[in-house]
Amino acid sequence: MSSVPWLPGLLPFRAQPESHALRIDLGERSYPIHIGRLDWAECARQLSKPGQLALIVSNETVAPLYADRLRAALEPVYGRVESLILPDGEQHKNWRSLQSLQTALAQAGADRRTTLFALGGGVVGDLCGFAAAIWMRGVRFVQVPTTLLSQVDSSVGGKTGINLDEGKNLVGAFHQPVAVWADLAALASLPAREFSAGLAEVIKYGPIADLAFLDWLERHMEGLRARDADLLAVAVRRSCEIKAAVVAADEHEVDLRAILNFGHTFGHALENSLGYGHLLHGEAVGLGMLMATELSVQRLGLDPAWVPRLRRLLERAGLPVQAPRLAAPSFLALMRGDKKSEAGAIRYVLLPPGAGRAEMVAAPDAAALAAVHAHSA
Amino acid sequence: MSSVPWLPGLLPFRAQPESHALRIDLGERSYPIHIGRLDWAECARQLSKPGQLALIVSNETVAPLYADRLRAALEPVYGRVESLILPDGEQHKNWRSLQSLQTALAQAGADRRTTLFALGGGVVGDLCGFAAAIWMRGVRFVQVPTTLLSQVDSSVGGKTGINLDEGKNLVGAFHQPVAVWADLAALASLPAREFSAGLAEVIKYGPIADLAFLDWLERHMEGLRARDADLLAVAVRRSCEIKAAVVAADEHEVDLRAILNFGHTFGHALENSLGYGHLLHGEAVGLGMLMATELSVQRLGLDPAWVPRLRRLLERAGLPVQAPRLAAPSFLALMRGDKKSEAGAIRYVLLPPGAGRAEMVAAPDAAALAAVHAHSA
Repeated sequence: MSSVPWLPGLLPFRAQPESHALRIDLGERSYPIHIGRLDWAECARQLSKPGQLALIVSNETVAPLYADRLRAALEPVYGRVESLILPDGEQHKNWRSLQSLQTALAQAGADRRTTLFALGGGVVGDLCGFAAAIWMRGVRFVQVPTTLLSQVDSSVGGKTGINLDEGKNLVGAFHQPVAVWADLAALASLPAREFSAGLAEVIKYGPIADLAFLDWLERHMEGLRARDADLLAVAVRRSCEIKAAVVAADEHEVDLRAILNFGHTFGHALENSLGYGHLLHGEAVGLGMLMATELSVQRLGLDPAWVPRLRRLLERAGLPVQAPRLAAPSFLALMRGDKKSEAGAIRYVLLPPGAGRAEMVAAPDAAALAAVHAHSA
Repeated sequence: MSSVPWLPGLLPFRAQPESHALRIDLGERSYPIHIGRLDWAECARQLSKPGQLALIVSNETVAPLYADRLRAALEPVYGRVESLILPDGEQHKNWRSLQSLQTALAQAGADRRTTLFALGGGVVGDLCGFAAAIWMRGVRFVQVPTTLLSQVDSSVGGKTGINLDEGKNLVGAFHQPVAVWADLAALASLPAREFSAGLAEVIKYGPIADLAFLDWLERHMEGLRARDADLLAVAVRRSCEIKAAVVAADEHEVDLRAILNFGHTFGHALENSLGYGHLLHGEAVGLGMLMATELSVQRLGLDPAWVPRLRRLLERAGLPVQAPRLAAPSFLALMRGDKKSEAGAIRYVLLPPGAGRAEMVAAPDAAALAAVHAHSA
């Protein structure tokens, strides 16, 4: 009955928005993912051990929009609500911000019962989650993702961390939130370019896990870009369902979880070679998925029609489908520096014939570069 | 049959040195603790997944004594052996050292299969373990403790972290090593004052967990201070057995594990109020145990004879038994800042009548201060 028999616990795709919370099943570390137009006060009341101090972590862009609303929802539940507002941008996902968070916790008198709230996109979520992971060896935190990308990807699954000059996410921890509040209302304020970048991670789940969802995305891409509430609810929910099933099967990325990095080895190298800020993460992942699909055709015999099919869907999502011109040697070095490449041959997440699933496959540099060049200027 | 029926898995004390490795039972995260005069090359061969790169982390005092020996043991097993030598001292257990470790890992091309080796005392072990916990969200590390204190306490159990200006060990992670190599030969080079400080943590295990071991320590303290190899083997092994049983029962310090902090709430405040470096950690813990025993007499009705009994044993171990004069208000504030005090009343690890066990008990500030003053100038 399951549409993806190799992914235990994932039920077939249903194109109906549902109102109950999803649950990610991780034993003692299980938690709910609330999706929809949410009542934050009600969500806050459902937290099982609220504790004394709540610290809201946000950035200068998101805080003016939502921090007061979050504070009002938390004040009836917590003894004290403090906040720390970081500068906006991937370049601030670093040691400096992490230290300022730990210092803020110390100065606020945080203890082991303190709960952190990550209000913002992936940068805020990764930083705040990592800060929660290491404060007194681990305290609770709640993800309140306000971007499409963080709602469908980074807020679920417990990967947290910061970037080093030498590479993205090199330092971090697995630390699960106690709840995710994916409020679709927050997406209304998202700039179009960021919204499209989030769609790249939504699209990702089709090729790697769910052909029925891919078909549905192809039928509804214009409605999604128009931010139709019912369509968004379906897309965010299905993305989270797939991510939850993968993470429940392989929390610490021993093997299966790596398929969620489809397009990311190419994508991280693109982001790095162009310098952070030129391409949004989702844009780079979209291009990376095209390259990985191209490589899948060459290495695994995937039907070549997958390449134009994916390209067209990315275009309709408002995403770039041709990378800038790249220098091959440095690009390879960047891919090799990506933490999924262990000692030697680079391994990629590729699509086998039929797709709707994915696997890790090593590929020679020449083949990878050919795939890059097929989708660059 | 067990001498401590409330501590599952702990067998009765036997005053015989044994040669096989202890094992700490934590499911998938179980690991051996080798105790004795060790062949490091043989220990290295027993590591199950050695990987490609080994990074030795040590300090300027220990590295000249043992780093070459460790490197020689690792080179036949690892593709590459690098090292990072930190300055010596608790004041370097900070962000700066942590960052330099992460940068060294990035620059050495470390990946998820890299193994770190902590060669030194508690500071090196805590820092190196925390660095291993957060590099690429967690890699393997081996504890090679060279001080008595780290052999009987900090190297076992997976607590890692750094200090902030606001307090000790406020930032960190639970991250278990894959092995502990407690080489008794390394204790020969230890200064007498540090050796005595380590004995404080050995003595600790008696009152909180094992009266037979306490009796044995009272019979053999002079031999231990003379560093008799057989006596040391018994003392280190029994300390590790007790710690292993406690940690196996409560890895993340939900409750039971807190008993290992006997003397530490007072001790941390002593260290802090005097400034790091005036008292060694073990010296402060020894004084803290006296104060906690005093408080146990007052609050739980422990036999008052425990106070002079413990004081005499600490004296014979070469430890101070009277704290410098302290300012009560700031001392209380420091205890309150200790991370075991959650929101309000300070809780202490105290000894119930009969002892050989311990429990967490809240006590009023006046009673705690009376216990402090009974053992200060």
